[in-house]
Amino acid sequence: MLKFFTYNWQIRDEWLEWCRQLTEEDLLKNRIGGVGSFLYTIFHIIDVEYSWIRAIQGKDDVMIEFNDNNSLERVKFLSETFRREISIFLETLPVEFGDELITVPWDEAKYTRNDILHHIIAHEIHHIGQLSVWAREMNLKPVSVNYIGRKL
Amino acid sequence: MLKFFTYNWQIRDEWLEWCRQLTEEDLLKNRIGGVGSFLYTIFHIIDVEYSWIRAIQGKDDVMIEFNDNNSLERVKFLSETFRREISIFLETLPVEFGDELITVPWDEAKYTRNDILHHIIAHEIHHIGQLSVWAREMNLKPVSVNYIGRKL
Repeated sequence: MLKFFTYNWQIRDEWLEWCRQLTEEDLLKNRIGGVGSFLYTIFHIIDVEYSWIRAIQGKDDVMIEFNDNNSLERVKFLSETFRREISIFLETLPVEFGDELITVPWDEAKYTRNDILHHIIAHEIHHIGQLSVWAREMNLKPVSVNYIGRKL
Repeated sequence: MLKFFTYNWQIRDEWLEWCRQLTEEDLLKNRIGGVGSFLYTIFHIIDVEYSWIRAIQGKDDVMIEFNDNNSLERVKFLSETFRREISIFLETLPVEFGDELITVPWDEAKYTRNDILHHIIAHEIHHIGQLSVWAREMNLKPVSVNYIGRKL
Protein backbone atom coordinates (compact mmCIF):
# COMPACT_ATOMS: atom_id res chain seq x y z
CA MET A 1 0.00 0.00 0.00
CA LEU A 2 2.78 2.39 1.01
CA LYS A 3 4.63 1.71 -2.23
CA PHE A 4 1.63 2.89 -4.24
CA PHE A 5 1.70 6.19 -2.35
CA THR A 6 5.42 6.56 -3.08
CA TYR A 7 4.71 5.75 -6.74
CA ASN A 8 1.91 8.30 -6.98
CA TRP A 9 3.95 11.01 -5.30
CA GLN A 10 6.93 10.44 -7.55
CA ILE A 11 4.77 10.72 -10.66
CA ARG A 12 2.91 13.72 -9.26
CA ASP A 13 6.25 15.50 -8.78
CA GLU A 14 7.23 14.63 -12.33
CA TRP A 15 3.96 16.06 -13.66
CA LEU A 16 4.44 19.22 -11.61
CA GLU A 17 7.88 19.57 -13.23
CA TRP A 18 6.39 18.74 -16.63
CA CYS A 19 3.84 21.53 -16.18
CA ARG A 20 6.63 24.12 -16.06
CA GLN A 21 6.77 24.07 -19.85
CA LEU A 22 3.12 25.22 -20.10
CA THR A 23 1.97 28.81 -20.27
CA GLU A 24 -0.31 29.90 -17.43
CA GLU A 25 -3.17 29.85 -19.93
CA ASP A 26 -2.49 26.24 -20.93
CA LEU A 27 -2.01 25.22 -17.32
CA LEU A 28 -5.41 26.61 -16.31
CA LYS A 29 -7.32 25.97 -19.52
CA ASN A 30 -10.47 23.94 -18.94
CA ARG A 31 -10.17 20.68 -20.88
CA ILE A 32 -12.66 18.00 -21.84
CA GLY A 33 -13.01 15.10 -19.40
CA GLY A 34 -11.76 14.65 -15.87
CA VAL A 35 -12.08 17.61 -13.54
CA GLY A 36 -10.84 20.37 -15.87
CA SER A 37 -7.36 21.83 -16.31
CA PHE A 38 -3.91 20.33 -15.74
CA LEU A 39 -3.41 22.38 -12.59
CA TYR A 40 -6.88 21.83 -11.19
CA THR A 41 -6.49 18.06 -11.69
CA ILE A 42 -3.31 17.99 -9.61
CA PHE A 43 -4.87 20.28 -7.01
CA HIS A 44 -7.92 18.00 -6.87
CA ILE A 45 -5.74 14.89 -6.38
CA ILE A 46 -3.92 16.59 -3.49
CA ASP A 47 -7.13 17.88 -1.91
CA VAL A 48 -8.90 14.51 -2.13
CA GLU A 49 -5.92 12.60 -0.73
CA TYR A 50 -5.53 14.97 2.20
CA SER A 51 -9.24 15.01 3.03
CA TRP A 52 -9.49 11.22 3.11
CA ILE A 53 -6.30 10.81 5.12
CA ARG A 54 -7.58 13.32 7.68
CA ALA A 55 -10.92 11.51 7.78
CA ILE A 56 -9.19 8.20 8.46
CA GLN A 57 -7.53 9.85 11.43
CA GLY A 58 -10.82 11.29 12.68
CA LYS A 59 -9.64 14.83 11.99
CA ASP A 60 -11.87 17.61 10.64
CA ASP A 61 -11.86 18.30 6.91
CA VAL A 62 -9.79 21.32 5.89
CA MET A 63 -11.37 23.26 3.05
CA ILE A 64 -8.79 24.39 0.50
CA GLU A 65 -9.93 26.70 -2.28
CA PHE A 66 -8.43 26.39 -5.72
CA ASN A 67 -8.86 30.14 -6.27
CA ASP A 68 -6.40 30.76 -3.45
CA ASN A 69 -3.94 28.21 -4.85
CA ASN A 70 -4.12 28.42 -8.64
CA SER A 71 -0.41 28.62 -9.42
CA LEU A 72 2.12 25.85 -9.96
CA GLU A 73 4.13 27.03 -6.95
CA ARG A 74 1.13 27.01 -4.62
CA VAL A 75 -0.01 23.57 -5.75
CA LYS A 76 3.53 22.25 -5.31
CA PHE A 77 3.64 23.81 -1.86
CA LEU A 78 0.37 22.16 -0.85
CA SER A 79 1.54 18.82 -2.20
CA GLU A 80 4.77 18.94 -0.21
CA THR A 81 3.22 20.29 2.97
CA PHE A 82 0.43 17.72 3.13
CA ARG A 83 2.76 14.93 2.09
CA ARG A 84 5.00 15.44 5.11
CA GLU A 85 1.97 14.99 7.38
CA ILE A 86 0.61 12.05 5.39
CA SER A 87 4.00 10.30 5.30
CA ILE A 88 4.25 10.30 9.08
CA PHE A 89 0.76 8.85 9.32
CA LEU A 90 1.36 6.16 6.70
CA GLU A 91 4.66 5.07 8.23
CA THR A 92 2.92 4.23 11.50
CA LEU A 93 0.09 2.40 9.79
CA PRO A 94 -0.88 -1.08 10.99
CA VAL A 95 -0.53 -3.77 8.30
CA GLU A 96 -4.27 -4.32 8.34
CA PHE A 97 -6.85 -1.88 9.65
CA GLY A 98 -9.58 -4.44 10.02
CA ASP A 99 -13.08 -3.89 8.76
CA GLU A 100 -14.28 -1.22 11.18
CA LEU A 101 -16.50 1.27 9.35
CA ILE A 102 -15.85 4.97 9.75
CA THR A 103 -17.79 8.07 8.79
CA VAL A 104 -16.42 11.02 6.86
CA PRO A 105 -17.65 14.62 7.05
CA TRP A 106 -18.82 14.87 3.39
CA ASP A 107 -20.68 11.60 2.95
CA GLU A 108 -23.41 9.67 4.77
CA ALA A 109 -22.08 6.24 3.82
CA LYS A 110 -19.51 4.45 5.96
CA TYR A 111 -16.25 3.03 4.67
CA THR A 112 -13.37 0.95 6.00
CA ARG A 113 -9.98 2.66 6.33
CA ASN A 114 -8.53 0.02 4.08
CA ASP A 115 -10.99 0.80 1.30
CA ILE A 116 -10.30 4.51 1.69
CA LEU A 117 -6.56 3.94 1.16
CA HIS A 118 -7.32 1.89 -1.96
CA HIS A 119 -9.63 4.68 -3.12
CA ILE A 120 -6.98 7.39 -2.73
CA ILE A 121 -4.44 5.36 -4.70
CA ALA A 122 -6.77 4.51 -7.59
CA HIS A 123 -8.11 8.09 -7.66
CA GLU A 124 -4.69 9.59 -8.36
CA ILE A 125 -3.65 7.02 -10.98
CA HIS A 126 -6.97 7.52 -12.78
CA HIS A 127 -6.65 11.30 -13.03
CA ILE A 128 -2.99 11.08 -14.04
CA GLY A 129 -4.09 8.91 -16.95
CA GLN A 130 -6.29 11.78 -18.10
CA LEU A 131 -3.36 14.23 -18.06
CA SER A 132 -1.49 11.93 -20.44
CA VAL A 133 -4.23 12.23 -23.08
CA TRP A 134 -4.36 16.02 -22.78
CA ALA A 135 -0.56 16.15 -23.13
CA ARG A 136 -0.64 14.16 -26.39
CA GLU A 137 -3.45 16.37 -27.67
CA MET A 138 -1.00 19.27 -27.24
CA ASN A 139 1.70 17.28 -29.08
CA LEU A 140 3.66 16.95 -25.85
CA LYS A 141 5.20 13.76 -24.49
CA PRO A 142 3.51 12.86 -21.19
CA VAL A 143 5.36 11.73 -18.08
CA SER A 144 6.13 8.00 -18.17
CA VAL A 145 4.07 6.28 -15.49
CA ASN A 146 5.55 2.78 -15.61
CA TYR A 147 5.56 1.34 -12.14
CA ILE A 148 8.37 -1.11 -12.73
CA GLY A 149 11.81 0.26 -13.37
CA ARG A 150 11.28 3.07 -10.86
CA LYS A 151 13.24 3.43 -7.64
CA LEU A 152 10.46 3.33 -5.06
CA MET B 1 -3.58 -6.41 -3.68
CA LEU B 2 -6.32 -8.87 -4.62
CA LYS B 3 -8.98 -6.20 -4.08
CA PHE B 4 -7.33 -3.97 -6.68
CA PHE B 5 -7.60 -6.79 -9.21
CA THR B 6 -11.27 -7.25 -8.37
CA TYR B 7 -11.75 -3.48 -8.72
CA ASN B 8 -10.00 -3.36 -12.09
CA TRP B 9 -11.94 -6.32 -13.43
CA GLN B 10 -15.27 -4.89 -12.34
CA ILE B 11 -14.53 -1.60 -14.08
CA ARG B 12 -13.17 -3.36 -17.15
CA ASP B 13 -16.45 -5.27 -17.45
CA GLU B 14 -18.38 -2.03 -17.10
CA TRP B 15 -16.31 -0.43 -19.88
CA LEU B 16 -16.87 -3.46 -22.10
CA GLU B 17 -20.61 -3.04 -21.53
CA TRP B 18 -20.29 0.72 -22.09
CA CYS B 19 -18.60 0.05 -25.43
CA ARG B 20 -21.73 -1.65 -26.75
CA GLN B 21 -23.21 1.78 -27.50
CA LEU B 22 -20.35 2.58 -29.91
CA THR B 23 -20.35 1.85 -33.61
CA GLU B 24 -17.57 -0.47 -34.80
CA GLU B 25 -15.90 2.57 -36.34
CA ASP B 26 -15.90 4.50 -33.05
CA LEU B 27 -14.76 1.43 -31.13
CA LEU B 28 -11.73 0.97 -33.39
CA LYS B 29 -11.02 4.61 -34.22
CA ASN B 30 -7.45 5.59 -33.39
CA ARG B 31 -7.55 8.34 -30.76
CA ILE B 32 -4.95 10.76 -29.46
CA GLY B 33 -2.98 9.60 -26.41
CA GLY B 34 -2.71 6.22 -24.77
CA VAL B 35 -2.37 3.22 -27.05
CA GLY B 36 -5.06 4.08 -29.60
CA SER B 37 -8.70 3.07 -29.76
CA PHE B 38 -11.19 2.13 -27.04
CA LEU B 39 -11.04 -1.54 -28.00
CA TYR B 40 -7.28 -1.68 -28.45
CA THR B 41 -6.82 -0.09 -25.01
CA ILE B 42 -8.88 -2.80 -23.32
CA PHE B 43 -7.16 -5.50 -25.39
CA HIS B 44 -3.76 -4.05 -24.39
CA ILE B 45 -4.72 -4.06 -20.68
CA ILE B 46 -5.76 -7.72 -20.90
CA ASP B 47 -2.66 -8.71 -22.88
CA VAL B 48 -0.26 -6.93 -20.51
CA GLU B 49 -1.91 -8.36 -17.40
CA TYR B 50 -1.82 -11.90 -18.74
CA SER B 51 1.78 -11.66 -19.94
CA TRP B 52 3.04 -10.42 -16.58
CA ILE B 53 1.03 -12.96 -14.61
CA ARG B 54 2.42 -15.77 -16.77
CA ALA B 55 5.92 -14.36 -16.32
CA ILE B 56 5.51 -14.35 -12.54
CA GLN B 57 4.66 -18.02 -12.76
CA GLY B 58 7.67 -18.75 -14.97
CA LYS B 59 5.42 -19.60 -17.91
CA ASP B 60 6.17 -18.70 -21.55
CA ASP B 61 4.63 -15.56 -23.01
CA VAL B 62 1.62 -16.20 -25.22
CA MET B 63 1.47 -13.85 -28.18
CA ILE B 64 -2.04 -12.61 -28.83
CA GLU B 65 -2.64 -10.55 -31.97
CA PHE B 66 -5.15 -7.73 -31.92
CA ASN B 67 -5.98 -8.36 -35.57
CA ASP B 68 -7.31 -11.78 -34.62
CA ASN B 69 -9.33 -10.33 -31.73
CA ASN B 70 -10.60 -6.93 -32.84
CA SER B 71 -14.25 -7.29 -31.86
CA LEU B 72 -15.97 -6.55 -28.56
CA GLU B 73 -16.98 -10.19 -28.23
CA ARG B 74 -13.47 -11.49 -28.76
CA VAL B 75 -11.93 -9.02 -26.32
CA LYS B 76 -14.57 -9.93 -23.75
CA PHE B 77 -13.86 -13.61 -24.35
CA LEU B 78 -10.11 -13.10 -23.81
CA SER B 79 -10.76 -11.08 -20.67
CA GLU B 80 -12.96 -13.78 -19.17
CA THR B 81 -10.78 -16.68 -20.23
CA PHE B 82 -7.55 -15.25 -18.88
CA ARG B 83 -9.26 -13.99 -15.74
CA ARG B 84 -10.31 -17.50 -14.72
CA GLU B 85 -6.67 -18.60 -14.89
CA ILE B 86 -5.38 -15.44 -13.17
CA SER B 87 -7.97 -15.69 -10.37
CA ILE B 88 -6.84 -19.18 -9.44
CA PHE B 89 -3.24 -18.00 -9.33
CA LEU B 90 -4.01 -14.88 -7.28
CA GLU B 91 -6.11 -16.78 -4.76
CA THR B 92 -3.17 -18.99 -3.89
CA LEU B 93 -0.75 -16.07 -3.63
CA PRO B 94 1.46 -15.76 -0.57
CA VAL B 95 0.89 -12.51 1.39
CA GLU B 96 4.42 -11.38 0.53
CA PHE B 97 6.54 -12.72 -2.30
CA GLY B 98 9.78 -11.45 -0.88
CA ASP B 99 12.31 -9.58 -2.94
CA GLU B 100 13.53 -12.32 -5.22
CA LEU B 101 14.19 -10.90 -8.71
CA ILE B 102 12.78 -12.68 -11.72
CA THR B 103 13.35 -12.31 -15.44
CA VAL B 104 10.62 -11.90 -18.06
CA PRO B 105 10.83 -12.93 -21.72
CA TRP B 106 10.49 -9.40 -23.18
CA ASP B 107 12.87 -7.41 -20.99
CA GLU B 108 16.48 -7.67 -19.83
CA ALA B 109 15.87 -6.05 -16.45
CA LYS B 110 14.82 -8.09 -13.44
CA TYR B 111 11.82 -7.32 -11.25
CA THR B 112 10.28 -8.60 -8.05
CA ARG B 113 6.92 -10.37 -8.30
CA ASN B 114 5.52 -7.85 -5.88
CA ASP B 115 6.51 -4.92 -8.10
CA ILE B 116 5.04 -6.69 -11.12
CA LEU B 117 1.66 -7.02 -9.38
CA HIS B 118 1.76 -3.32 -8.50
CA HIS B 119 2.65 -2.57 -12.12
CA ILE B 120 -0.29 -4.54 -13.52
CA ILE B 121 -2.73 -2.76 -11.21
CA ALA B 122 -1.47 0.77 -11.94
CA HIS B 123 -1.24 0.01 -15.66
CA GLU B 124 -4.95 -0.78 -15.93
CA ILE B 125 -6.14 2.16 -13.84
CA HIS B 126 -3.97 4.51 -15.90
CA HIS B 127 -5.35 3.40 -19.26
CA ILE B 128 -8.92 3.41 -17.97
CA GLY B 129 -8.41 7.07 -17.05
CA GLN B 130 -7.63 7.73 -20.70
CA LEU B 131 -10.89 6.11 -21.84
CA SER B 132 -12.80 8.52 -19.62
CA VAL B 133 -11.39 11.55 -21.48
CA TRP B 134 -12.18 10.05 -24.88
CA ALA B 135 -15.73 9.31 -23.71
CA ARG B 136 -16.31 12.93 -22.67
CA GLU B 137 -14.85 14.11 -25.98
CA MET B 138 -17.66 12.12 -27.63
CA ASN B 139 -20.21 13.71 -25.27
CA LEU B 140 -20.70 10.37 -23.53
CA LYS B 141 -20.74 9.79 -19.79
CA PRO B 142 -17.80 7.57 -18.83
CA VAL B 143 -18.02 4.62 -16.44
CA SER B 144 -17.74 5.74 -12.80
CA VAL B 145 -14.48 4.43 -11.39
CA ASN B 146 -14.90 5.32 -7.73
CA TYR B 147 -13.27 2.63 -5.63
CA ILE B 148 -15.35 3.23 -2.54
CA GLY B 149 -19.03 2.44 -2.67
CA ARG B 150 -18.39 -0.63 -4.84
CA LYS B 151 -19.08 -4.17 -3.76
CA LEU B 152 -15.64 -5.74 -4.10
